[in-house]
Amino acid sequence: MLGNLVPVVQQNVISQLTSRPKLIVLDTMNFWMDIAMDELKKTITMIDVLTINDSEARQLSGEYSLVKAAQKILDMGPKIIVIKKGEHGALLFNKEEVFFAPALPLEEVFDPTGAGDSFAGGFIGYLAKTKDISFENMKRAIIFGSAMASFTVERFGTENLIGISQDQINKRVQQFVDLVQFEIS
Amino acid sequence: MLGNLVPVVQQNVISQLTSRPKLIVLDTMNFWMDIAMDELKKTITMIDVLTINDSEARQLSGEYSLVKAAQKILDMGPKIIVIKKGEHGALLFNKEEVFFAPALPLEEVFDPTGAGDSFAGGFIGYLAKTKDISFENMKRAIIFGSAMASFTVERFGTENLIGISQDQINKRVQQFVDLVQFEIS
Repeated sequence: MLGNLVPVVQQNVISQLTSRPKLIVLDTMNFWMDIAMDELKKTITMIDVLTINDSEARQLSGEYSLVKAAQKILDMGPKIIVIKKGEHGALLFNKEEVFFAPALPLEEVFDPTGAGDSFAGGFIGYLAKTKDISFENMKRAIIFGSAMASFTVERFGTENLIGISQDQINKRVQQFVDLVQFEIS
Repeated sequence: MLGNLVPVVQQNVISQLTSRPKLIVLDTMNFWMDIAMDELKKTITMIDVLTINDSEARQLSGEYSLVKAAQKILDMGPKIIVIKKGEHGALLFNKEEVFFAPALPLEEVFDPTGAGDSFAGGFIGYLAKTKDISFENMKRAIIFGSAMASFTVERFGTENLIGISQDQINKRVQQFVDLVQFEIS
């Protein structure tokens, strides 16, 4: 999991790995698109999953439609793209499929700082723990990432993550299940 | 289904009904909140379901959090509130439960005009056809409403709705099912 950093450093980290990991996820941001787009584009040819937000997906692709943006970015190298829309949830794309994970409607958002990083941590943590990088399991990973982000924004800094139990996480994940659950007969 | 109109006229329509229908749904907008808030608040005591968008829910309740806004508005009279978030989907609340329906990620949004009315038509049309006003069935109604809105925005005016088949609608509804489908083991 390559955190949001200058693209050349991200490249160097990948190059220094003696054996390629099963999955390389990269996070980046608009700042690197503004000042180092060419290096960033080279870096994303070396990875498997790209996570960015909606406006960054538009900037990187030049497309307003997130469906078109995702497909254009997948043509640049990654097999998977996660487009984060903050309080509006997240989209997961590969070339054939799309999955949408809602954000949990919360009574109070105290501080959104760190939501993206908590999301990334929950996402990669779930994949690392389950050792399954199928699209189906990535859906679950996105839900766990969204759950972690929902805890983070309810308090200041990491306050709400310190001492959190697996049971609390499972209950929060169940809220996501209930939130979108419907049956078409 | 009371379309978006001056609140006094909506009240008069309800008063003129010789027998109360099984369900009264009301659509309204920020304009009536600006110029006729008291009459609007009186009108929404007379209805079962209120449909408004996110900024209107905030204006009507004075709460930024949509969870708090929904609960405050439910205290004003309606049993159910639908909060429409345009391209970010829709939320359905009663006092105990919440359901989130995504909007379908589309390749192209040609013209969003009429999306809200198509949503309302699909929602009330599904309820009228199935004659079931349970929360579970309202979830399905929201999905059908969202499906109708997704057709509307792909073309100009009503172009994409004219001559649409039940089969096309069912396929579109299935896309919503697939979009949010995941299994937590």
